[in-house]
Amino acid sequence: MLEQLRIEVLEANLELVRRGLVLYTFGNASGVDRERGLCVIKPSGVPYEKMTPADLVVTDLDGKIVEGSLKPSSDLATHVLLYKRFPAIGGVVHTHSRHATAWAQACREIPCFGTTHADYFHGSVPCTPLLTREEIEGDYEHNTGEAIVRRFEGLDPLHFPGVLVAGHAPFAWGKTAAAAAFNAVVLEEIAAMALETVTIHSSAAPIPAAMMDKHFLRKHGPNASYGQK
Amino acid sequence: MLEQLRIEVLEANLELVRRGLVLYTFGNASGVDRERGLCVIKPSGVPYEKMTPADLVVTDLDGKIVEGSLKPSSDLATHVLLYKRFPAIGGVVHTHSRHATAWAQACREIPCFGTTHADYFHGSVPCTPLLTREEIEGDYEHNTGEAIVRRFEGLDPLHFPGVLVAGHAPFAWGKTAAAAAFNAVVLEEIAAMALETVTIHSSAAPIPAAMMDKHFLRKHGPNASYGQK
Amino acid sequence: MLEQLRIEVLEANLELVRRGLVLYTFGNASGVDRERGLCVIKPSGVPYEKMTPADLVVTDLDGKIVEGSLKPSSDLATHVLLYKRFPAIGGVVHTHSRHATAWAQACREIPCFGTTHADYFHGSVPCTPLLTREEIEGDYEHNTGEAIVRRFEGLDPLHFPGVLVAGHAPFAWGKTAAAAAFNAVVLEEIAAMALETVTIHSSAAPIPAAMMDKHFLRKHGPNASYGQK
Amino acid sequence: MLEQLRIEVLEANLELVRRGLVLYTFGNASGVDRERGLCVIKPSGVPYEKMTPADLVVTDLDGKIVEGSLKPSSDLATHVLLYKRFPAIGGVVHTHSRHATAWAQACREIPCFGTTHADYFHGSVPCTPLLTREEIEGDYEHNTGEAIVRRFEGLDPLHFPGVLVAGHAPFAWGKTAAAAAFNAVVLEEIAAMALETVTIHSSAAPIPAAMMDKHFLRKHGPNASYGQK
Repeated sequence: MLEQLRIEVLEANLELVRRGLVLYTFGNASGVDRERGLCVIKPSGVPYEKMTPADLVVTDLDGKIVEGSLKPSSDLATHVLLYKRFPAIGGVVHTHSRHATAWAQACREIPCFGTTHADYFHGSVPCTPLLTREEIEGDYEHNTGEAIVRRFEGLDPLHFPGVLVAGHAPFAWGKTAAAAAFNAVVLEEIAAMALETVTIHSSAAPIPAAMMDKHFLRKHGPNASYGQK
Repeated sequence: MLEQLRIEVLEANLELVRRGLVLYTFGNASGVDRERGLCVIKPSGVPYEKMTPADLVVTDLDGKIVEGSLKPSSDLATHVLLYKRFPAIGGVVHTHSRHATAWAQACREIPCFGTTHADYFHGSVPCTPLLTREEIEGDYEHNTGEAIVRRFEGLDPLHFPGVLVAGHAPFAWGKTAAAAAFNAVVLEEIAAMALETVTIHSSAAPIPAAMMDKHFLRKHGPNASYGQK
Repeated sequence: MLEQLRIEVLEANLELVRRGLVLYTFGNASGVDRERGLCVIKPSGVPYEKMTPADLVVTDLDGKIVEGSLKPSSDLATHVLLYKRFPAIGGVVHTHSRHATAWAQACREIPCFGTTHADYFHGSVPCTPLLTREEIEGDYEHNTGEAIVRRFEGLDPLHFPGVLVAGHAPFAWGKTAAAAAFNAVVLEEIAAMALETVTIHSSAAPIPAAMMDKHFLRKHGPNASYGQK
Repeated sequence: MLEQLRIEVLEANLELVRRGLVLYTFGNASGVDRERGLCVIKPSGVPYEKMTPADLVVTDLDGKIVEGSLKPSSDLATHVLLYKRFPAIGGVVHTHSRHATAWAQACREIPCFGTTHADYFHGSVPCTPLLTREEIEGDYEHNTGEAIVRRFEGLDPLHFPGVLVAGHAPFAWGKTAAAAAFNAVVLEEIAAMALETVTIHSSAAPIPAAMMDKHFLRKHGPNASYGQK
């Protein structure tokens, strides 16, 4: 079932390992089949080196397991909520990558300090507020998704393909699982650059709006000019 | 003698190398056989590349050599004291890994800034006070262990599987030698993240207690839900 | 056409990958054939692993494609302008390498804090001002080149083989494509060292002029004594 | 001539590469044959990958070439001066390794913040003053050595096996070329740890003298207990 999507999701998980975004079994990637309303996600706590497409878990968008003998990632409820509320996305990635996590732990949005950032995020990388005690003690992973969705009111998830969950770590997404992994890698890099930028100049300013637009729209939207399309 | 434990302890030592926690021969891992009251530990100053299970040294819990032609790690007295006082642990690791050592040198506990931390430490990573001159000039390695044990009054060593020794470096432990090495790697990562967190926001706050509990208990204790158990 | 130059330019692009200066397809290197007035440049958005000399694009110095079925790098207009205005250079490299980009994002010149810097840059690494809205919304890549050229009034591009474009990232150059890549790598290293220098001592001072001259002239100019020439 | 020493010096040079202390051809290691009064040193600007024992240059302790068709490292005059003035040393290494160079650029001694440092340096890592204009414009490399020697008045070079040259970079040494390379690697690590220590706690204090003595003397001197000797 969903053989091709399983391969893509496994590959997205492995890309996180190759790029140094995950330690041990931390982190997870998923993909969605919009027609069937099914999600393919990494199993919980299984070493990446041994993972095969068959180990991935298929669930519906309420998080109910449809196929798979292993337990899904403990963050499943966040993934499926994002698929429900952000209909344009096809893949979700969650990591505890070092630099993006540091910004999440500092509860600080990442200002758009340069074009590397503007090429992929059309403004600051959003950060949720801390979850309340009720949200934490209730359906925690679901409520994490709700906090993300609330923070994205008025924002296009494809213009801001990731978020920092305060006190926790980043989520990233994209049109496919591969794009979600790519955006997680880019987010980690811009988090690293921003950390160094504020180290050099503690009150560094974001780039002007015109520059942000120029770069974002060079790579995205109807007038994109980057790459071979 | 203790062939299986020798293999496990060697593997824990090599894991420290693979994860970049040790430079040259710095660092050491040990394991304990509780039934026989014996400890297996790395020899002192032997290159990791050439180390075999037979090179490891077997001692009793007073540090007396029972088997082995090489000298044990100079930190042996700290290891065996921890085994005596923390009956639930089965492995101990000592490294001078860069980021955790920086916190130890700064004589600062690592605040629980996020869930990566809370997944493995149920609060700040403890830091001992500096040893007194008498403690240093006396039975130094033993007194290092005593300082750790005193700092852990009222704390469950499995809820805080590591410590910073002020002006020195971290020790980590776990139910097995492998778990001790894993916790040493995690401690190094959360030390790195915490360093970046205070760089971004010098007065960053720890996460709320509810979030700390949620994450720690998701991975530990009777209601743990992480992984395939 | 330009078979040898294609090989050199491909090699310069691959050197950026090997040295960790580029993520995914970020970054680009080019070379110029001064006799024919032709530029060879990396195609846009093509993975480095698959790139062959034949994939590179040949343009004239107005950026018009002369040979090649792929689209050239989106930064082509900056490259060709630099070739026109800096007649002594033979190669140009653009990357978003982390540390140099952090200085560009902080809109700060890199002070000449030491001899590693002085060996290759005869003073601070220049930084352009931010482009104006008109410059950004106009012929952006061309105007980026113009901003660089204006910043270099009175400076010899071979004495300062690179620049930070404010809010963006570095460009580097040299007598050949290989030299441009080498200078990009050196610039990244001195950016890293300078970041750490200001972390240790926020008001660190540049080295004295005599030291700057000594080192720069030990490697450059008629009395150079370094290497086997 | 000096076949064995050539092999040892080549190996020390390659160790610097393996440990990430040198970029391109930066850095150099040498060794001395005390009986014959001869120094073996890396040639200037030759890629490490292609270097053979035969490429190394033999000089006397005034820096006069005795054997070798290549030019010696431009830092030769510093090396030979150190051999003359520090009779106990057998190898010298010079690198521009990132973290130690940052401290040199900040013109700051590295305080002894912990035992990793105290295991190899019996106090702060010394830093020379900046050279004067006369010293720079005169016999620069020789005067660099003189500045080091002056800074070491009253210090035992084997108790402080390295130095920071202000505005420049570190030199390290030891009883052999291999020991010099080892000390250069350790110096780089303690520089990295110290940088992070002051980032966490800007007024961090050195460890107490008793701790410094304990660790230094555990590894050095007549009562050393570390390793298998």
